[in-house]
Amino acid sequence: MTSEATTLKGKPLDRAALDSMLRRRMFYTPSFEIYGGVAGLYDYGPPGCSLQANVIDAWRKHFVLEEDMLEVDCSVLTPHEVLKTSGHVDKFADWMCKDPKNGDIIRADHFVEEILESRLKGDKEARGQKVEEKEEDPKKKKKKIKGAIEAIKLDDAVVQEYEEILAKIDNYNGTELGELIKKYDLKNPATGVQPSPPVAFNLMFQTAIGPSSNLPGYLRPETAQGQFLNFAKLLEFNQQQMPFASASIGKSYRNEISPRSGLLRVREFLMAEIEHFVDPEGGKKHPRFSEVKDIELVLLNRETQLSGKTDIQRVAIGKAVEDGTVDNETLGYFLARIHLFLKKIGVDQSKIRFRQHMANEMAHYAADCWDAELFTSYGWIECVGCADRSAYDLSVHAKKTGSPLIVRQRLPEPLVIEEWQVDLNKKKFGPHFKKDGRTVEAAVEATTQEQRESLAKELNEKGSIILEVAGVGEGKVEIPKELIVIERRTRTENVREFTPNVIEPSFGIGRILYSLMEHCFWTRGSEGGDEARLVLSFPPTVAPTKVLIVPLSSNDKFTPICQKLSLKLRKAGVSSRIDDSSATIGKRYSRNDELGTPLGITIDFQTLQDSTLTLRDRDSTKQVRADEDKIIAAIKSLADGEKEWKDIEAELPAFEGQEIEVASR
Amino acid sequence: MTSEATTLKGKPLDRAALDSMLRRRMFYTPSFEIYGGVAGLYDYGPPGCSLQANVIDAWRKHFVLEEDMLEVDCSVLTPHEVLKTSGHVDKFADWMCKDPKNGDIIRADHFVEEILESRLKGDKEARGQKVEEKEEDPKKKKKKIKGAIEAIKLDDAVVQEYEEILAKIDNYNGTELGELIKKYDLKNPATGVQPSPPVAFNLMFQTAIGPSSNLPGYLRPETAQGQFLNFAKLLEFNQQQMPFASASIGKSYRNEISPRSGLLRVREFLMAEIEHFVDPEGGKKHPRFSEVKDIELVLLNRETQLSGKTDIQRVAIGKAVEDGTVDNETLGYFLARIHLFLKKIGVDQSKIRFRQHMANEMAHYAADCWDAELFTSYGWIECVGCADRSAYDLSVHAKKTGSPLIVRQRLPEPLVIEEWQVDLNKKKFGPHFKKDGRTVEAAVEATTQEQRESLAKELNEKGSIILEVAGVGEGKVEIPKELIVIERRTRTENVREFTPNVIEPSFGIGRILYSLMEHCFWTRGSEGGDEARLVLSFPPTVAPTKVLIVPLSSNDKFTPICQKLSLKLRKAGVSSRIDDSSATIGKRYSRNDELGTPLGITIDFQTLQDSTLTLRDRDSTKQVRADEDKIIAAIKSLADGEKEWKDIEAELPAFEGQEIEVASR
Repeated sequence: MTSEATTLKGKPLDRAALDSMLRRRMFYTPSFEIYGGVAGLYDYGPPGCSLQANVIDAWRKHFVLEEDMLEVDCSVLTPHEVLKTSGHVDKFADWMCKDPKNGDIIRADHFVEEILESRLKGDKEARGQKVEEKEEDPKKKKKKIKGAIEAIKLDDAVVQEYEEILAKIDNYNGTELGELIKKYDLKNPATGVQPSPPVAFNLMFQTAIGPSSNLPGYLRPETAQGQFLNFAKLLEFNQQQMPFASASIGKSYRNEISPRSGLLRVREFLMAEIEHFVDPEGGKKHPRFSEVKDIELVLLNRETQLSGKTDIQRVAIGKAVEDGTVDNETLGYFLARIHLFLKKIGVDQSKIRFRQHMANEMAHYAADCWDAELFTSYGWIECVGCADRSAYDLSVHAKKTGSPLIVRQRLPEPLVIEEWQVDLNKKKFGPHFKKDGRTVEAAVEATTQEQRESLAKELNEKGSIILEVAGVGEGKVEIPKELIVIERRTRTENVREFTPNVIEPSFGIGRILYSLMEHCFWTRGSEGGDEARLVLSFPPTVAPTKVLIVPLSSNDKFTPICQKLSLKLRKAGVSSRIDDSSATIGKRYSRNDELGTPLGITIDFQTLQDSTLTLRDRDSTKQVRADEDKIIAAIKSLADGEKEWKDIEAELPAFEGQEIEVASR
Repeated sequence: MTSEATTLKGKPLDRAALDSMLRRRMFYTPSFEIYGGVAGLYDYGPPGCSLQANVIDAWRKHFVLEEDMLEVDCSVLTPHEVLKTSGHVDKFADWMCKDPKNGDIIRADHFVEEILESRLKGDKEARGQKVEEKEEDPKKKKKKIKGAIEAIKLDDAVVQEYEEILAKIDNYNGTELGELIKKYDLKNPATGVQPSPPVAFNLMFQTAIGPSSNLPGYLRPETAQGQFLNFAKLLEFNQQQMPFASASIGKSYRNEISPRSGLLRVREFLMAEIEHFVDPEGGKKHPRFSEVKDIELVLLNRETQLSGKTDIQRVAIGKAVEDGTVDNETLGYFLARIHLFLKKIGVDQSKIRFRQHMANEMAHYAADCWDAELFTSYGWIECVGCADRSAYDLSVHAKKTGSPLIVRQRLPEPLVIEEWQVDLNKKKFGPHFKKDGRTVEAAVEATTQEQRESLAKELNEKGSIILEVAGVGEGKVEIPKELIVIERRTRTENVREFTPNVIEPSFGIGRILYSLMEHCFWTRGSEGGDEARLVLSFPPTVAPTKVLIVPLSSNDKFTPICQKLSLKLRKAGVSSRIDDSSATIGKRYSRNDELGTPLGITIDFQTLQDSTLTLRDRDSTKQVRADEDKIIAAIKSLADGEKEWKDIEAELPAFEGQEIEVASR
């Protein structure tokens, strides 16, 4: 799979070389490394931290500011009751087994899957068929079970059984997985024994809040719940106007059983989540959908996935919503906006696709879900989820707490409703039914319109009705007409109440950063006589540092010029770094290629004479020369994303001299 | 104490009114409120979140960018071993007691203190002396013990004993506090019984990392440890240059026993911390100290605190370092820079002081510490700590892990050292001592220069030496001269190795935000005939939203103008909000006064004719009128902090018309 991934220039991507450079330049580093590290925990060093801050800044501008979203910052510590209600305590878990011999912890579904797959491979080998390596599925977080494939032929019926199991592997619960392990005698190749029956392992980190341990809590697995719990206040803050969105940027936590894949599967991660609250009626239209309708996306829907087709077409989102591929405008609007965001920060356009979740793959709360997947050396990676959570969360929290998490809208004109209503004669009703009074009353209130219609008829005809009431008498009671009136009446409603649905674009910032680093990576070596030089071609808007300032030599006269320039750039809101080390200019530029610094300013002896500076473009290594003001203006327009290098080249005179020296160092 | 705090205009501050407004406008809100809330956990709503983001942005510019600090983003989840080494597992704890009758959890030191104080008050009452309310000490996080003061006279000797205990209340450990409770029969007034003996309660939230519970971990209590563990990599990233600073912005956690005081004492909080690594030799000079030396600070040192003086003077930091009040330039430099930062974001200059920690008050790692305290209705609140952590952290982590967390510096000229050296004849040494060989060798290596001098003499005189070696023979061994040479020789050192000291400015962002909200708060009521209107006068640079756009009426012609203007402001990097609700202009401005929006643009019928706009200043309610470009340029210069309103008033023509209408609505 690694071999399929490519650099920015289309060459095969050498992940090991990239990874080693990212660590050397401290984009990231394993946390607590001098203590041996902890799987799934990473620190960002200065360039990684700056890249992250710039991507977050771009995100905030693209989503929060552009659409007046209500940003909130909620607690990570979350009491048990909240996550019990949301379903996370019961359902946010994986099934795990323990190897009784060596104590290995094994994810049950992955274990069954891998052993059966390995047996099928062995069968193919025994039959002399070619064993194809199945494409690694990035959605699955397998801990590879080590063990050689044995060429053993299976009965045809067994092969079919195995294949049927594998086709629905995601649907088994723990008990069923345990039964499969027993039935097929699945053994851990490392020890030769069957693992213990699967137990649920909840993926949330648990802790206790306060000095007495009576308030168990968790680190949130998503930022969403905090936004839902604040719904009523946010609606009030938005002056009761719908639709609106809240947004939140913050860390979330998942206690993965066995984290791997570097920055892609970690236990602590930064998320940026939007909860867009929309009226479920009226087709979930979006007022700005027309702005994005012509944007073309690569869409991989359920049917295409099931059919196994690979000739995926780019489709305008307007058309996709029209033909029902994407359910509604709001979902479609956000898919397009996500696409534009990813494009803006420098993700390779040929390595984005939107994949619809299969029914059995969705989170417990989702009604529909599309993932923005980015292609990397680990395969297609889910980087942004865009789920329709329906009214699930608001409903369960409202039910649990009694807080009305609803929208009340004055109707344009009052709604006149004709319906069957029931009145009870309270004075007589209580004494008549005594201790059963309330139970019977509740049963009456619970009757449907259809029941009331026939009950009215019965009452009219017989002078009493017979109602089923569980737990009273023999399960039926008779209510005489002195106690009850059932009539068809009209009622006027001025206000409509509804629970909004939620469309949730949810961004895994760490995964986006890693994919971006792969997409921007290339080696300069193939394009010159020089040894291979690694480059990260981040767009200037998100690059960690925008400008490298290099004095030609360590001549003291250059120092004040560098500092003055750095100060001016800082005032213009542009981050720069001076490298006045004794290394050659080539070495210094090379270091900054690795850091992804898009621009370089060389200060040379001509600068001392006429105050002109050369500005160098990282990607083309072309240079222009002009006075300070023009150079700073050029830098600012590049850093703000207003211009590209070709615009600058067209405006300012080219400079050839310096680059020769760099190349010939 | 509340009565002493004042508004921005010097009037008594009504904390209840402010607090109610802050919640109503969703600056903050108790987390999980619909579930009853959890003490010490708060969410920031849209304006609070935006204020926080702007303060963080200002912090990053003022510190990280201005001084090329190396920002890192490290894991919150931290394994036990790291925090065991740093001392947090053993020392980051409070002593707590339990009331056996009602189960109340009580902080032991606060309990002893409050009961003794209450007895002393009772004694004074019994003696007919005036009982003065002691100034509330914001450093102490007391849970007030409820109970009436009984007027009981105490023996003079007992009074003296109590006073002596209170004077050193911070120095007692748990056992001692327990003895005090027994000796003086201190009872919880709520139940009339003695609480249980104090037990240590560690303030860190504990959890388990991974599926097997063999990796206990904590939520970090500070961001500092992650920075220390990365020291060697950061030094390498900084190309081995000293001094340098790392910085980190992120959440930390403290499981307070009984959190109170709203946003001031919480369990989850945002910190911004700097670790400035400096050579301990050479007086900890700072290269940019001269830039800040004339800045005057209010300094409250240990001696002044002990003497009980209150006539505190403003002192230039240069003088304070010179006379030793502040230990060194680097510490002094950061105190001044902290002061400038607080000033920049709008903290009231008359409500800042720097207080030196008393010896018994410092964190376990600190060598010296000054707090920037801000005055609020809760008293003086520690908002920024500036500690000299010496080489403590780097040393303990290096010792525990064996990683060299040191700086190696080439000496300007080689250092020639004359010293006693020992050579062993390895070939004969091993066979001679057999199994004890290594132990004896280690004992020889461990000898000091003084010992070696006398051993050389002994060897020379007697032909052998007698050395004490624990655990070998009878604790002494004889080493003949065939096995050992002890000589005075010279050795040349080209490199100096040292462990840097750390100066740590540590910002509690939540506390700063709360203090800022108090400092910027005032009521407009007293200045007009109108009913009291609450205002938050944030500086434009940190205000959550910069501009309110208000169309004069709901006329459809205004809508496109509002949207075009909003878009232009967004492109200029200025956040705005349109309020086209049907409320009066006065009401709409009033709402935004409460949100701290510094500027307002009114779009009226004249705008439709000549495209001019009025710009209103929140604080003075003065207005100017000009065309769109001039108004946007004015707004941008205000939002960037380049100009003040008086500059705008001097540049653009005043507009009187609209304000009359607003006032007379």
